[in-house]
Amino acid sequence: MSKIISIAIDAMGGENSPDKTIEGIKLFLEKNKKNDYILNIFGKEQELKKTLAKYKVVSNLIQIIDSKNVVSDEESPMTAVKNSKNTSMWNCIQHQLEGKSDISLSAGNTGVLLVVSRMILKMMNGVSRPALAGLWPNQNGMNVVLDLGANIECNENNLVDFAELGSALFKSIFPSEKPKVSLLNIGSEEIKGTEVLKNASKKLKDLSSDDNFIYNGYIEGNNIMSGNSNVIVTDGFTGNVALKTAEGTAKFISKNLKKSLTKMSLIFSYFSLKNFKDKLDPRKYNGAIFLGLNGPVVKSHGGIDSTGFYYSLDLCYKIVKGNLMSQIKKNLNHSNSVK
Amino acid sequence: MSKIISIAIDAMGGENSPDKTIEGIKLFLEKNKKNDYILNIFGKEQELKKTLAKYKVVSNLIQIIDSKNVVSDEESPMTAVKNSKNTSMWNCIQHQLEGKSDISLSAGNTGVLLVVSRMILKMMNGVSRPALAGLWPNQNGMNVVLDLGANIECNENNLVDFAELGSALFKSIFPSEKPKVSLLNIGSEEIKGTEVLKNASKKLKDLSSDDNFIYNGYIEGNNIMSGNSNVIVTDGFTGNVALKTAEGTAKFISKNLKKSLTKMSLIFSYFSLKNFKDKLDPRKYNGAIFLGLNGPVVKSHGGIDSTGFYYSLDLCYKIVKGNLMSQIKKNLNHSNSVK
Repeated sequence: MSKIISIAIDAMGGENSPDKTIEGIKLFLEKNKKNDYILNIFGKEQELKKTLAKYKVVSNLIQIIDSKNVVSDEESPMTAVKNSKNTSMWNCIQHQLEGKSDISLSAGNTGVLLVVSRMILKMMNGVSRPALAGLWPNQNGMNVVLDLGANIECNENNLVDFAELGSALFKSIFPSEKPKVSLLNIGSEEIKGTEVLKNASKKLKDLSSDDNFIYNGYIEGNNIMSGNSNVIVTDGFTGNVALKTAEGTAKFISKNLKKSLTKMSLIFSYFSLKNFKDKLDPRKYNGAIFLGLNGPVVKSHGGIDSTGFYYSLDLCYKIVKGNLMSQIKKNLNHSNSVK
Repeated sequence: MSKIISIAIDAMGGENSPDKTIEGIKLFLEKNKKNDYILNIFGKEQELKKTLAKYKVVSNLIQIIDSKNVVSDEESPMTAVKNSKNTSMWNCIQHQLEGKSDISLSAGNTGVLLVVSRMILKMMNGVSRPALAGLWPNQNGMNVVLDLGANIECNENNLVDFAELGSALFKSIFPSEKPKVSLLNIGSEEIKGTEVLKNASKKLKDLSSDDNFIYNGYIEGNNIMSGNSNVIVTDGFTGNVALKTAEGTAKFISKNLKKSLTKMSLIFSYFSLKNFKDKLDPRKYNGAIFLGLNGPVVKSHGGIDSTGFYYSLDLCYKIVKGNLMSQIKKNLNHSNSVK
C-alpha cells in the first residue's frame, strides 16, 4: 500500500466557518473512498465536534486537533507572527513542519497565511521567492498560472523559478499531461517586452526539455485560455491583474446574458445553460497554491462555499498524491545542472 | 454654424482595404446626416474611385487625395520613417499637421502609425509620453482605459499625464458624464502596489476636482467593468495584458456557451442572444486613440470589418466634436497650476 496522505485543515478560516469547512470535508469523505488519507482538522474542539455532529460526519479518516485561537480577518501580516501562535492556522503549518502532515489548507487571512507559512516552513534551497499559483480553465483543460500576487516586482531568475515550480505543480496535478510553459507578454515576437522578460525567455529556452517542461515562448493575454500552453508565468502584479480581469469579464458577461434572456428562452435553455455554468463554475478552480517553501500550502478563497472548499481539499489530495515536492526537486536539480 | 469637422482617412491600411474602409465610410455617410464634416480619403486615386463606384458612394462630403504608396504590414517601426513618405498614412498625418484635418484614422501598421504620428505631430508641451487609449464597456456605459501598450514601463508622472489625457478624452466623447479616474492595482488599500503607483495616487488625490476629474483611488481587475470608475489608468504592459485577457475570456465564454446550447434552446433564445451579442459587439469598441501629440490619431483594428471601421470613424467625429484638444489643454493647465 502506498503512503497515507496526511492533510492539515484549518477549519476556522474564511466566511461561515467551521460550517462550510466541515460540509466541504463531508463532501470529500463521500466522494473519495480510497482510504489512503487522513484529515487533521484544526480548530476549537467543542465547536468542531458540534459541527461534525450537525452534519452527521462520522469517519475514522479524520482527527480533531484542538486549537484555542483563530486568526482574525483584520489581522495584518505585520503583527501576524506575534498574534497567531496557537491559532488553528499556525498549528496546521507547525504540524506540517513536524512531518505529521504533507500539506496545509486554510480559507483564512491570505497575508497572514503567507507570512506564517514562510516563517515556519522556510524557503526551499535554490528558490529565491515563494510564488502564489492558481488554476485557470483553458480550451483543452486547465492552466497553472503564477505568480498571482506574492511578488509585485520580479527579476529574470524569479520568473525562471516560477516556471520550474509551476510545471512541477502541473505535473503533480495532471500526471498524464506535459507542462508547456509560456511567459505572459504584450506580443509574441522576440523583441517585445521588458529586458527582464527577454532574459527570462532566453534562459527558459535553454531549460526547455522533455524532462521538465516544453518552453512555448511568449503568450498574449487573449491566448491564456487557448490551451496551447498550460503553465503561464508572469510577475505577481500582472498575474493578479490578469486573473481578476478575467473574473470580472466573466461576471460581466454572465450578468448581461441573464439580463438579455427572456423568461421563455430561459426555460428552454435551462439545462444547456446549467451545463455551461457547471463547466465554468469558479468553485472548481478554487485554491491558490504557495510554492517554493519546504512544503505546499493551499489557500482556499475566504468567501467560497462548502463545495468550493471541497475542491480545494481535493486539490490538496491530488498535489500530495502527485508528489509535488519531489517533482519540484527534480525540476530544480535539472535547472541547476543546466545553469 | 459650428466649425466643419475635417477627418483624414487612410483608406489603404488593414485587411481587405480599401473595400472595408470605403464600406465603413458609406455607413458613416448614411448614418450621419449633419453635414458638418468633410472626409479626406487618402490612397491610390484610381483604386479608390473604382471602390467608391462599386459601393455606389456619391457625396460632396468626401474628397480623395491621391497617395502613391501604402505602408506594408511587414514594415518595422525602425525603418518606417524612411519608407513611409508619401504613403496614404503619412499623408494623412501631414494633412493634419498643416491644419487641413483635425484628426487622422488608419487601420494600418500600429507601430509605424505611432512613430510617424509622433514624428510629424510632435509631443504636446507638458506631456512626456504619448499614450494609447481604448474604449471598454462597463456596467453603466463605457470606460476609457490607458495606456494599452505604448509605454511598457512608466513613472508616476506618466501615470498622472495619462489620467489627464484619459479624462479629457472621456469628456470629449461623453460630454454629459463626469470622468472618474482609478489606478489599476492589485488591491484597494493604500499600502498596495508599487512605489510608482503609491506616488501617482497621492498626486491624483491632489488633482482631483470638479474641474477635471474625480479620483476614485485604486481599482482591481475584477472591478474594471463595474462602472464605478470610467477612466482606468495603468502602464502599457499591464493595460495591454488586461485588455487582451478580457478579450480572450469573452471569446472563451461565448465559444463554450455556443457549444453548450442545444439546437432547440438556440432557436428559443435566438433573439435574446442576438440582443446580448449586439450589446457586447467588439466592433463597437474598435479604435485605439493616440493621446499626448499635437492632434489626435485613431488606430482602427487591422482585422476589423467595415462596421468596425465605421465605429472608429464615428469615434473620430465625436472626438473632434467634443473638442478633445482644448479639453486636454484645460486639464494640463489645471494640473500645472496645482503642481
